[in-house]
Amino acid sequence: MAVKDYIDTTDFTKEQLLAMAQLGLELKAAIAAGYYPPLLANKTLGMIFEQSSTRTRVSFETAMTQLGGHAQYLAPGQIQLGGHETMEDTARVLSRLVDILMARVERHATVVNLAKHATIPVLNGMSDYNHPTQELGDLITMMEHLPAGKKLEDCKVVFVGDATQVCVSLMFITTKMGMDFVHFGPKGFQVKEDVLAIARANCEVSGGSVTVTEDADLAMAGADFVYTDVWYGLYEAELSYDQRMAIFFPKYQVNEALLAKAQPHVKFMHCLPASRGEEVTDQVLDGPASIAFDEAGNRLTAMRALLVYFLRPTVPDAAAVAAAKASLDARLAGLPAL
Amino acid sequence: MAVKDYIDTTDFTKEQLLAMAQLGLELKAAIAAGYYPPLLANKTLGMIFEQSSTRTRVSFETAMTQLGGHAQYLAPGQIQLGGHETMEDTARVLSRLVDILMARVERHATVVNLAKHATIPVLNGMSDYNHPTQELGDLITMMEHLPAGKKLEDCKVVFVGDATQVCVSLMFITTKMGMDFVHFGPKGFQVKEDVLAIARANCEVSGGSVTVTEDADLAMAGADFVYTDVWYGLYEAELSYDQRMAIFFPKYQVNEALLAKAQPHVKFMHCLPASRGEEVTDQVLDGPASIAFDEAGNRLTAMRALLVYFLRPTVPDAAAVAAAKASLDARLAGLPAL
Amino acid sequence: MAVKDYIDTTDFTKEQLLAMAQLGLELKAAIAAGYYPPLLANKTLGMIFEQSSTRTRVSFETAMTQLGGHAQYLAPGQIQLGGHETMEDTARVLSRLVDILMARVERHATVVNLAKHATIPVLNGMSDYNHPTQELGDLITMMEHLPAGKKLEDCKVVFVGDATQVCVSLMFITTKMGMDFVHFGPKGFQVKEDVLAIARANCEVSGGSVTVTEDADLAMAGADFVYTDVWYGLYEAELSYDQRMAIFFPKYQVNEALLAKAQPHVKFMHCLPASRGEEVTDQVLDGPASIAFDEAGNRLTAMRALLVYFLRPTVPDAAAVAAAKASLDARLAGLPAL
Repeated sequence: MAVKDYIDTTDFTKEQLLAMAQLGLELKAAIAAGYYPPLLANKTLGMIFEQSSTRTRVSFETAMTQLGGHAQYLAPGQIQLGGHETMEDTARVLSRLVDILMARVERHATVVNLAKHATIPVLNGMSDYNHPTQELGDLITMMEHLPAGKKLEDCKVVFVGDATQVCVSLMFITTKMGMDFVHFGPKGFQVKEDVLAIARANCEVSGGSVTVTEDADLAMAGADFVYTDVWYGLYEAELSYDQRMAIFFPKYQVNEALLAKAQPHVKFMHCLPASRGEEVTDQVLDGPASIAFDEAGNRLTAMRALLVYFLRPTVPDAAAVAAAKASLDARLAGLPAL
Repeated sequence: MAVKDYIDTTDFTKEQLLAMAQLGLELKAAIAAGYYPPLLANKTLGMIFEQSSTRTRVSFETAMTQLGGHAQYLAPGQIQLGGHETMEDTARVLSRLVDILMARVERHATVVNLAKHATIPVLNGMSDYNHPTQELGDLITMMEHLPAGKKLEDCKVVFVGDATQVCVSLMFITTKMGMDFVHFGPKGFQVKEDVLAIARANCEVSGGSVTVTEDADLAMAGADFVYTDVWYGLYEAELSYDQRMAIFFPKYQVNEALLAKAQPHVKFMHCLPASRGEEVTDQVLDGPASIAFDEAGNRLTAMRALLVYFLRPTVPDAAAVAAAKASLDARLAGLPAL
Repeated sequence: MAVKDYIDTTDFTKEQLLAMAQLGLELKAAIAAGYYPPLLANKTLGMIFEQSSTRTRVSFETAMTQLGGHAQYLAPGQIQLGGHETMEDTARVLSRLVDILMARVERHATVVNLAKHATIPVLNGMSDYNHPTQELGDLITMMEHLPAGKKLEDCKVVFVGDATQVCVSLMFITTKMGMDFVHFGPKGFQVKEDVLAIARANCEVSGGSVTVTEDADLAMAGADFVYTDVWYGLYEAELSYDQRMAIFFPKYQVNEALLAKAQPHVKFMHCLPASRGEEVTDQVLDGPASIAFDEAGNRLTAMRALLVYFLRPTVPDAAAVAAAKASLDARLAGLPAL
């Protein structure tokens, strides 16, 4: 798929991803100053959800509104990708009715196909493979919370627990940036070889590193950021409470004892929602190291950046606009009375 | 909960509630004159519905649009308050993604908790306890239809039938205003002692009165406004048609005979939807005394007022805006090509 | 129903329908030039769907956004037309809460009743009887793709297959325009006498013609436009795959052989979604004669035209606006602090 789509950060260079992040920070600062730039005026985002998601939906919809546009929510069941109508036909039709699409899908191939057949930009709102809008928000959050005197490239990021899409995505973005990434998780629930290969390729370019380990001390030593996610597992392979506790608890719970093994300035991150008492304790999630709620706010920061990045505002030709307005006004004046 | 939220009119003074009502009338007049003030430009309302509601949803959504903002509809099942994620976490996250929230909830404690944990304003779109947006719209409707030469404080308001949340809310707002409120309903379906105590406390401040009676003549004598609501009862305790007719019919039906016992200028109100032939006859609902449909239109009047009241527009610093715009424009000019 | 509503093109003259089509083309050209006229600023469209429909919903919602307004999506089950509340009451209430309504309904009488009781414009987003927004988009599409040197009145349009609402609607609009319309379909699935009578009445005024035939050569000879739709049948009478193939296949499939019987410049149309391999082949739908995807894009063209046509923008009195603004500003300045 072309660079017109945001499907996977692997399709972009470090510089492009940093440009997105910096654009996000700039838009955040502008809105904090009371300036809502109308960069997406009159534009429509079609939001396709194969699964419910409050955070992704709300942040995309708010981002469109704040920048002058509008988002249409197509709830699970309201639109079928590749059912009665072929995916290709749906993509071709929607490309004529909206300006940009986002899709949260059950299978990664769905969003890849949608992007392939759509002639407008398609943004991946999470698949079973990755979660690139989360990635960008997390990058922005780390940029905002860099340890004093450190650059991104100096930082160590540890993901604790199950190798979810969020874990894989964090590995992608941190290794792309040249950071040191560690997955601290139990065998059988560690990042797989196919995605590790991508991370290693990233490191060859960026100078970063990637490590997978079951050793808590090794993992946490020197960590600047510690991240976790729920232990459910994916979809039909979802784990029961007893199953997941048997696998991950207590070793992979982020609690104060585990966090104490990291840097004193360590920051705690979580994509949320959290299962308090499972993968993280109240003390950590609500404690001074936690930046998880700022991170949630940066979902919005990321969405604004992506929408503007992939839907670049253009300035129409003033003469063409004036001519169109004159012609339309004449047409309106000549309409038959109701 | 703080005055930042609109959960219960009991939290506000008569003067504050009148300021909301007058703001609503002012906004209504402005829009009737063709002036749509962009007071909520770029702002987002998150609308959480635990139960479907056309009237409340449509009026909130239209109010946001007319004032330059946008409302996001989170349908029943799309967001869970206090399920997988704690209510506190949901409130903290949504506070970062939207500007103001409204919630229609099954249990009053839910909206109270949401307001407690949210850092943005929360408006109660009806609970099992009260219906304060309806209250404000009803107050506005009565202000528009005051009998000639009378002030609010001179008026008698009679609620007929089952002590629904709408009945309780009408009692709250009328006693707060210093009006004479009567609940004319059968024993077992009359307003309860806990809410009566609130109404009596209101009357001590306002000079109003509150009466509960089964005597039709006593109830209706001198009434300026007569109000009713459906006889279903609440949720799991819903009454069957036979049950409710046995309890309320014919004594508590608002028909022409009952209405004739009130003032000649009496106005009939209903929160709608109505079960025609049960709590009200066609003759009354469609008759000259009925202001029920104007009252429905004032749901929108109330929503506009509440949104502006709790989301006060601020004027950003012009220099900060100019600086933000310059900085953002430079960033946009430097974006890598797509 | 009054001309305030767009329920059936039979209610309008050829000149009025052409004015709508030309308005649509004008708005399309303006937006292509980068001019989004804010003709529906602050206006709200209520969209009632008794059945899901991606195309109709998305095109209406995008049209509102592009013209400065907002559309509210009332999904199947979120609002009931004529259930607990009478249709008349629902129509009267919604008329006070939004500016214009559209409804996709199961039974035509529903949208007729809604329009009768609403005091605002109602647009028919498809019923079991007709599909007039599709009609207008199809007319616009044919106007954009007229054979060189031909006027609308010179063209022959052939609908192939089952006499769906789309077939009937195409018959209505083409005969209204004075075109030659042919329904090529098997006995039992041909357009019925009641709607044929309307088409014949159209032809008496317009000079067009209407033919129903099972003869492929007769049908296709000289055809400028060939149109088809799915073979499912309607709702509870839906046909299984085996049933519909037995009835329509292969005679009524639009494939290259059938299309070769028409004019060399023939254009292929389809309301979509298509069941590829049933009523149309990939070769035709994706081939050079196909304008089906442009036609889908013209759903948006039609919606813009209808919304502006039935919701004529008015210029408010400047003095009244200034007075309203001054009064509101004073009210805002005097609000009690939060």
